[in-house]
Amino acid sequence: MQNIKFYQDAVTKYLEGFATQREPVSLYNPINYILQLGGKRLRPVLTLMTAEAFNSDYTNALDAALSIEVFHNFSLIHDDIMDDAPLRRGQETVHEKWDINTGILSGDAMLIMAYQLFENYEPSVFQALAKLFSKTALEVCEGQQYDVDFEIRDDVTIQEYLKMIEYKTAVLVGAAMKMGAIVAKASEADQNGIYEFGKNLGIAFQLQDDYLDAFGDPKSFGKQVGGDIIENKKTYLYIKAVEFASEDNTLELQHLFSLTPPDPTDKIETAKQIFKSSGAADATRKEIENYTNKAFGVLETLNIPASKKEILKAFGLSLMHRNV
Amino acid sequence: MQNIKFYQDAVTKYLEGFATQREPVSLYNPINYILQLGGKRLRPVLTLMTAEAFNSDYTNALDAALSIEVFHNFSLIHDDIMDDAPLRRGQETVHEKWDINTGILSGDAMLIMAYQLFENYEPSVFQALAKLFSKTALEVCEGQQYDVDFEIRDDVTIQEYLKMIEYKTAVLVGAAMKMGAIVAKASEADQNGIYEFGKNLGIAFQLQDDYLDAFGDPKSFGKQVGGDIIENKKTYLYIKAVEFASEDNTLELQHLFSLTPPDPTDKIETAKQIFKSSGAADATRKEIENYTNKAFGVLETLNIPASKKEILKAFGLSLMHRNV
Repeated sequence: MQNIKFYQDAVTKYLEGFATQREPVSLYNPINYILQLGGKRLRPVLTLMTAEAFNSDYTNALDAALSIEVFHNFSLIHDDIMDDAPLRRGQETVHEKWDINTGILSGDAMLIMAYQLFENYEPSVFQALAKLFSKTALEVCEGQQYDVDFEIRDDVTIQEYLKMIEYKTAVLVGAAMKMGAIVAKASEADQNGIYEFGKNLGIAFQLQDDYLDAFGDPKSFGKQVGGDIIENKKTYLYIKAVEFASEDNTLELQHLFSLTPPDPTDKIETAKQIFKSSGAADATRKEIENYTNKAFGVLETLNIPASKKEILKAFGLSLMHRNV
Repeated sequence: MQNIKFYQDAVTKYLEGFATQREPVSLYNPINYILQLGGKRLRPVLTLMTAEAFNSDYTNALDAALSIEVFHNFSLIHDDIMDDAPLRRGQETVHEKWDINTGILSGDAMLIMAYQLFENYEPSVFQALAKLFSKTALEVCEGQQYDVDFEIRDDVTIQEYLKMIEYKTAVLVGAAMKMGAIVAKASEADQNGIYEFGKNLGIAFQLQDDYLDAFGDPKSFGKQVGGDIIENKKTYLYIKAVEFASEDNTLELQHLFSLTPPDPTDKIETAKQIFKSSGAADATRKEIENYTNKAFGVLETLNIPASKKEILKAFGLSLMHRNV
């Protein structure tokens, strides 16, 4: 196994070859555009690393890895339309640079192209990859729909919230790794184990994203600290605070999350104080630890050399420490 | 082989079992809704008929047939958003009944569910169906994009127009039939032959749709006669008229197709006159005949009994006479 940079470069290079001159250019240019916007390519890197962890050559997994990345970018295009987001990775979103119709149709084409990337695999591998892909993709749609539904509900439970982030974010991480295992013809137990590793790590990562949004270091977080509070997003922190806080604090928090003041400084400060004093901040950290430990626990059961487990664990830790 | 009604009923019944109570209902209710709006189910009927033409039982082809219908309805949801259409089969469109975001996401889910319908087939059949599906679905996207692109161009050639309707409409008819042949394990030559039959019939059907829009009987056409003229759609009739007509008539036609008068009666009448006097109407009828004959010609080469060819031909003719 190689270091992360090595796999990132391999993905980037393979992606360049995927850029298409196909017609009509009005359909394919937006696809080339979003795929060239960059990003850390962590999902396809996980596919390649997993393939090598199970003794295959990463080159066998390039098509599956690229499929995961193409799907991820398809979901970004459609999500950005739904969220009316003007920017993605500091650049114009597809529907902003072109228009909504282009975003819809180019996204549709990408979803199909993601399936086509399995076509070079033999029939049984093709079917295994496509089945996993469909199940995962549908769950991602469901997660996105739950996220939309939750916006207008104020009785979302922690369990519902965890299911939402599992579907919207974590299952794709699990699937990315399982695809590497499928290509490497790992045993079914190992395929399912690495899926659980990725999924639990994905949940931990998303919960940490919630946590860092309030308590992260503005220098290293990468997004605007307090962004979720500004947008009144009911994250894990918020739901736990409403569950734990005194009635007064709960009412104050609910009131705060119905406002969008021009200067959000005070709102952010008050929300953070309630997140802390209620114990929600601690509970969130604890839950992150739980999911991380769950992921590392599954890793132990896998039928791969200890040295490779260490590499996967190190990658997991660097993900959690946001060093990648 | 049975009559068309028999296969239509089989599709309807199978569709009922496909209606899902899955959660979130906000994602799946719009899917149940559009699939229950009705329609003639001609594409899935063709899949079932073709399977039986190649000596399989139609029940083996139900999943493939349903996949075609689910994909078709996915494309209707997304197209209706792009066209800002309020009605579909006389009922509210999905984005009108719910909202655009629901239309996008429920459509995405349907595209994935269409692939999942292949999962009960053995790996080699699964791969053959999914490959054909992806190729076809991508062409349908390309056809839709060409259609959008052509709206703001006034130099679209007949060749470009024919490619657009082939991709947007006809390849799905070809694919519906080829899937029946794949499930029935027909020879590759027969699979490709039946695809060409369906595709050419699909092109003929779409050209006839263009023709009947101007010259059809209001009682039997099913849509508003003159609708394309009202919407300034540059159909086969229009492109041929611009090619054939005198300079004066061409200029008049181009002028007419830049207007949207409150009462379109005169506009429709003048356009129809120019379509006739220029020879465009005759040329369109001739082209419909060409594609129909091409379809029936391919049918002759297929390795199936003459009696079954007759049934497929009769179905093609009743399609063209709009008796189904």
